[in-house]
Amino acid sequence: MHAFVTGGAGFIGSSLVDRLLADGHSVVAFDNFSTGQRAFLDGASAHASFTLVEGDTLDLPALTAAMAGCDVVFHLAANADVRFGTEHPRRDLEQNTIATFNVLEAMRATGIRRIAFSSTGSVYGEAHVFPTPEDAPFPVQTSLYGASKLAGEGLIAAYASGFGFEGCVFRFVSILGERYTHGHVFDFYKSLRADPTRLRVLGNGKQRKSYLYIGDCLDAMLLAMRRTRNAVEIYNLGTDEYCEVNDSIGWICGRLGIDPVREYTGGERGWIGDNPFIFLDTAKIRGLGWRPKLTIEQGIVRTLEYLQAHPEILEARA
Amino acid sequence: MHAFVTGGAGFIGSSLVDRLLADGHSVVAFDNFSTGQRAFLDGASAHASFTLVEGDTLDLPALTAAMAGCDVVFHLAANADVRFGTEHPRRDLEQNTIATFNVLEAMRATGIRRIAFSSTGSVYGEAHVFPTPEDAPFPVQTSLYGASKLAGEGLIAAYASGFGFEGCVFRFVSILGERYTHGHVFDFYKSLRADPTRLRVLGNGKQRKSYLYIGDCLDAMLLAMRRTRNAVEIYNLGTDEYCEVNDSIGWICGRLGIDPVREYTGGERGWIGDNPFIFLDTAKIRGLGWRPKLTIEQGIVRTLEYLQAHPEILEARA
Repeated sequence: MHAFVTGGAGFIGSSLVDRLLADGHSVVAFDNFSTGQRAFLDGASAHASFTLVEGDTLDLPALTAAMAGCDVVFHLAANADVRFGTEHPRRDLEQNTIATFNVLEAMRATGIRRIAFSSTGSVYGEAHVFPTPEDAPFPVQTSLYGASKLAGEGLIAAYASGFGFEGCVFRFVSILGERYTHGHVFDFYKSLRADPTRLRVLGNGKQRKSYLYIGDCLDAMLLAMRRTRNAVEIYNLGTDEYCEVNDSIGWICGRLGIDPVREYTGGERGWIGDNPFIFLDTAKIRGLGWRPKLTIEQGIVRTLEYLQAHPEILEARA
Repeated sequence: MHAFVTGGAGFIGSSLVDRLLADGHSVVAFDNFSTGQRAFLDGASAHASFTLVEGDTLDLPALTAAMAGCDVVFHLAANADVRFGTEHPRRDLEQNTIATFNVLEAMRATGIRRIAFSSTGSVYGEAHVFPTPEDAPFPVQTSLYGASKLAGEGLIAAYASGFGFEGCVFRFVSILGERYTHGHVFDFYKSLRADPTRLRVLGNGKQRKSYLYIGDCLDAMLLAMRRTRNAVEIYNLGTDEYCEVNDSIGWICGRLGIDPVREYTGGERGWIGDNPFIFLDTAKIRGLGWRPKLTIEQGIVRTLEYLQAHPEILEARA
């Protein structure tokens, strides 16, 4: 296939680019490098079938021009900072909702109908059913991030109905692994590297979260895209387990051989819109034959090892 | 209260303005007159406590300036043309999603936290549960209109979580009654007035739909807003019944004393994204003590009588 990957220089995007190239596909990566990193595309750049286009998803003409000639779009570009929505509400609207609209309009203009979209388990708000299935009770949004991703999902489904688009919407738990550039493992390791004697923890540390390793995430996305035709299907992507933030701290500190004092900010939520329990039902994607290869603990350790080997990643973000 | 009504010159908006003024409240109506009608505000304009501001919800500074000093917002301005979404997808995004974002930002800038929002039963897509409750299984969107309203709902809920907003999201069935300016009764009557011998019907006429009379709609909205504090509540608004499009044609033709040949375009959907069955569970709003006073048939006849008495309404739209 001729794949177009928005956010192609990001954590998930660049990993997907490498996988697609390795599988023999041609790839156009589109990124504005607001959070993407050029080094992540060093390997891809050696491929003859790889093209990098520096551009912004809010620039519809540039997006449309870059997309011409492709036959499938992986729309991964997003503001993925779920925690800081209330500090700049417009960012989620523009970079997630309007950007997704632009991607769909660019596809319509260039005759592309197949799309994969990185949504989030945050669209379930504070779910009442665990593990949470794709057809859980109609949720109430609790974060601007979740709301903006839900808006993107709705647009994609409406384009499927109205214009015959097809593909997959993936509701991710937190993804981690190589090239991971934000999230709790990143924050904890960066803090512990500066001061291994103490660790500030948002909330009470008892938040129950799910994580999925990037390699398992890509396996699931590519399998689902191969299997989905003539419709838009929604898939939860996660592991069959969850852990407490405290578990993760234990694994990280164990690996680092340290025992910091844990200073909890308190409360069952780490921030406004934080979800104290995320655990998705993945029976649907498992029904296609997919299984994650790594446990949450293995994924967290793998992420930590990557960060230890790439301290420049920690410096790249303020 | 000091109410701010977006779309205040529209069908529902102007009816709400009159009701609020009659109840002794002060009202600022905000409308760009793209579909609103000045004549609908003739009565309101006689009140000292009424202000009309001509402006567009996409103009955030103007919206914010007009809103200052109010304490509750009824956000009714919208592109309400559910049928033609695929002809101009940007219209739903701008006039529904982005406009709602602007309303919320204007509220934040002016310190207003209470909002009522006109959403739609279309957010349920093609529901599988009837009557459809507010917590029906997580739906898949089928129209750009529904997707844009769902995006607005998500924004409001996220602002409630993030900024302490409160109020109500109302998922309407089709509303009809005096000042009704679009929809099937409008289209049928306009067609039959031009040629009473034949009637073109989109779909097979067996689509099952729900309708609610404007007076009952306003009763429900104002009751729910009085009762809702410290949260955003979602309410379905509709009657306890539904009818077939063919039933409605029968009531209209009976009232007009004609028997046109019905020419069906065929299929169970009248247009892309049309929903062949809309029937909402209204137990939640009924739990507050609300009951509709008019049946669907009475509402349709009342609408027809209004259109017969106001032929200028039929001329006002192409």
